[in-house]
Amino acid sequence: MTLLRVHGFSISLDGFGAGLGQDRANPLGVGGMAIHQWIFPTRAFHQMTGRDGGTTGIDDDFFARGFENIGASILGRNMFSPTRGDWTDDTWKGWWGANPPFHTPVFILTHHPRPSIEMEGGTTFHFVTEGIHVALERATVAAKGLDVRLSGGVATVRQYLSARLVDTMHLAISPVLLGSGEHLFTGIDLVKLGYQCERHVATPSATHMIIAKRS
Amino acid sequence: MTLLRVHGFSISLDGFGAGLGQDRANPLGVGGMAIHQWIFPTRAFHQMTGRDGGTTGIDDDFFARGFENIGASILGRNMFSPTRGDWTDDTWKGWWGANPPFHTPVFILTHHPRPSIEMEGGTTFHFVTEGIHVALERATVAAKGLDVRLSGGVATVRQYLSARLVDTMHLAISPVLLGSGEHLFTGIDLVKLGYQCERHVATPSATHMIIAKRS
Repeated sequence: MTLLRVHGFSISLDGFGAGLGQDRANPLGVGGMAIHQWIFPTRAFHQMTGRDGGTTGIDDDFFARGFENIGASILGRNMFSPTRGDWTDDTWKGWWGANPPFHTPVFILTHHPRPSIEMEGGTTFHFVTEGIHVALERATVAAKGLDVRLSGGVATVRQYLSARLVDTMHLAISPVLLGSGEHLFTGIDLVKLGYQCERHVATPSATHMIIAKRS
Repeated sequence: MTLLRVHGFSISLDGFGAGLGQDRANPLGVGGMAIHQWIFPTRAFHQMTGRDGGTTGIDDDFFARGFENIGASILGRNMFSPTRGDWTDDTWKGWWGANPPFHTPVFILTHHPRPSIEMEGGTTFHFVTEGIHVALERATVAAKGLDVRLSGGVATVRQYLSARLVDTMHLAISPVLLGSGEHLFTGIDLVKLGYQCERHVATPSATHMIIAKRS
């Protein structure tokens, strides 16, 4: 069975998954990079960015796990682009350069149609205007028996959680305050939706929590 | 200089400091006990409750620190009593029995006057109807050069944080979901108020964060 999995989703200790004021220079909003500091030293992140070395251990294991057994990905439009509304700049193909780190079909939720874009390394961006259920159906077909990774951002994860469509979620709470931004859980009653914290482990850089649907 | 300190303030991983539906059987609201599980096995908690034994180490150190150098305490009314409105039951003297664990003057924020109550072991409950600033002034005088502990609950801590009156805050994030309840940080921009996370350490039971005002 194909699972819908969230991995490496970082929030500040006051609950924000991204800062405000996203633009080309601040893909995660102002201050948003601070919540991802547990990722950057890891070996898996070094490999992803074409470098040797990096730390091994718990943080590295958690980051690497987000790429295992994944056959397709789902993204919100704001995680793909700093623009809003109609697609007016055809040269924008995401933040990640010619060879994005997905290496799978990627289904991008948007209200504005755009032709698919084939990138290097196995990533193809598909733009889905029919909502979260259709995006998940298409991603599930494309995953061919592997799992689908829900890559974010905050608003997209909130929609899939609220619809009880997320099967497991790895959350990393970083020891920083953001003060403002996009709050992950406000207004979402995860207990009522049937989720629980199944496992947790902390490192000097983050507290990792595994949230899953009760069976 | 007398500091206003918060200690051992526990929240769920989705940010709630207490559950809903407080009553005599549920002083922390329904489900609220779950966020305090890191406290109960500790030696300091055992001592507080008149028992031998208990765990030592990080969790115990954090719990014990909340009682060091404290000369007075401040409580919100809902942390003192499950009732609301006028004081109609004079026999209610808090959740803690004849010898409460404060051992200092305790200033209770309420809109409803009530005479002070002297308890065993050095605890005296004073009821303050003039708001958070007056309560802090009276507690500071009573502390005689020691610090004042802001003991909770959520609404009271939120008021003092919003007024920038809290000097340091020890927050314990527990690996549980509450789903609903009293959210500690919603609508409070701690960064704008001048707070930062200065230190953090995790145990299998909780992630401890020290939040302090930038100097």
